[in-house]
Amino acid sequence: MPSTTRTTPNRYADRMRDEPEVVRQILDEALVCHLSFVVNGEPRVLPTLHARDGETLYLHGSTGSRPMLAARSGEVPVCVAVTLLDGLVLTRSQFNHSVNYRSVVIHGRARLVTDVAEKRRSLAALVDHVAAGRSRDSRPPHDRELAQTSVLALPLAEAAAKVRTGGPADDPEDLGLPHWSGVLPLRLVAGVPEPGTDGVAVPLPAYLREYRRQR
Amino acid sequence: MPSTTRTTPNRYADRMRDEPEVVRQILDEALVCHLSFVVNGEPRVLPTLHARDGETLYLHGSTGSRPMLAARSGEVPVCVAVTLLDGLVLTRSQFNHSVNYRSVVIHGRARLVTDVAEKRRSLAALVDHVAAGRSRDSRPPHDRELAQTSVLALPLAEAAAKVRTGGPADDPEDLGLPHWSGVLPLRLVAGVPEPGTDGVAVPLPAYLREYRRQR
Repeated sequence: MPSTTRTTPNRYADRMRDEPEVVRQILDEALVCHLSFVVNGEPRVLPTLHARDGETLYLHGSTGSRPMLAARSGEVPVCVAVTLLDGLVLTRSQFNHSVNYRSVVIHGRARLVTDVAEKRRSLAALVDHVAAGRSRDSRPPHDRELAQTSVLALPLAEAAAKVRTGGPADDPEDLGLPHWSGVLPLRLVAGVPEPGTDGVAVPLPAYLREYRRQR
Repeated sequence: MPSTTRTTPNRYADRMRDEPEVVRQILDEALVCHLSFVVNGEPRVLPTLHARDGETLYLHGSTGSRPMLAARSGEVPVCVAVTLLDGLVLTRSQFNHSVNYRSVVIHGRARLVTDVAEKRRSLAALVDHVAAGRSRDSRPPHDRELAQTSVLALPLAEAAAKVRTGGPADDPEDLGLPHWSGVLPLRLVAGVPEPGTDGVAVPLPAYLREYRRQR
């Protein structure tokens, strides 16, 4: 993906990764994104679910939410960020403390998905993003439900990843200080599935056993 | 905290929680936030570290980053979101799928922290936010390092939380469908600490043993 003035960072340029497959992997692993837009000149940001289908990112929303309303009358400038935390990086100096992470920022103009076939496909992608295979093991939306849901589509044309990996990086003069340094790895894990209390008669499906985001 | 037109949602009003202690708990548990701002009329959002000190949220940045540069010439309108994922909520219908989460959105004007004492205090708070007690077990910044770091301060005056908890909520007519429904709990966990390879001579400190964000 080509660099633009919007995707070129001012600092830590060595953390930039613009390979499309890195961008895709991060988007596919992250469960939520943060969608920002402008209302009356003021910034807004909210968390929402996303799903990637090829080079398009679909964003889930309720019909009455502000970006969805704005998108009714044309494309909406948005910026979307996705962040995965991989570890805390503790150094002897406070200054060199850091975080291991993988993030993607996408700039672009989002359009409201109005084509019914694309809307159904994008909603299935959103369900499958949360749990791969779930769309084939759940009831697709009725027309009325379809009308109550809005989906935005954002091209991945202007997307860039930033990745920090590795250990602590203390300055040489700090190495003798009496403080622990290292990495505390972090990951999102699933606990024991809790069936609903409304009479679930079906065993836990395979795609929810040993659930993990990392691929 | 008083509701404003910016913190009043259009939908799912029953998920709104405006008790200050709920807002504070979510901010304190979350490791990262997403900071949005406007550049030339366009939305931008980026992940960064935050720390709460009373009714102020401090946001970490590098001196050359755009919101920090903008804040040099006055307060900057920002919107900050923090999101904790607690579980996937799977229902028999795709439409009722949901997520258990706790989120906070803050609107306001951020100022650059220029007072040296406040800057040192806020940087210690950022380190302690990541690992409670770490600021007393690491080298405070030199003046040169202090000059290379920027911190924004954002009042929590206009902040609101949204919380979804509980089980799946299928429509009555869907209860007989042959699909599993329930909650898959999610949580962020720490793995085995990995000491740096540059001669760490100090044992793992107590505040990094059995590390957890939930309080």
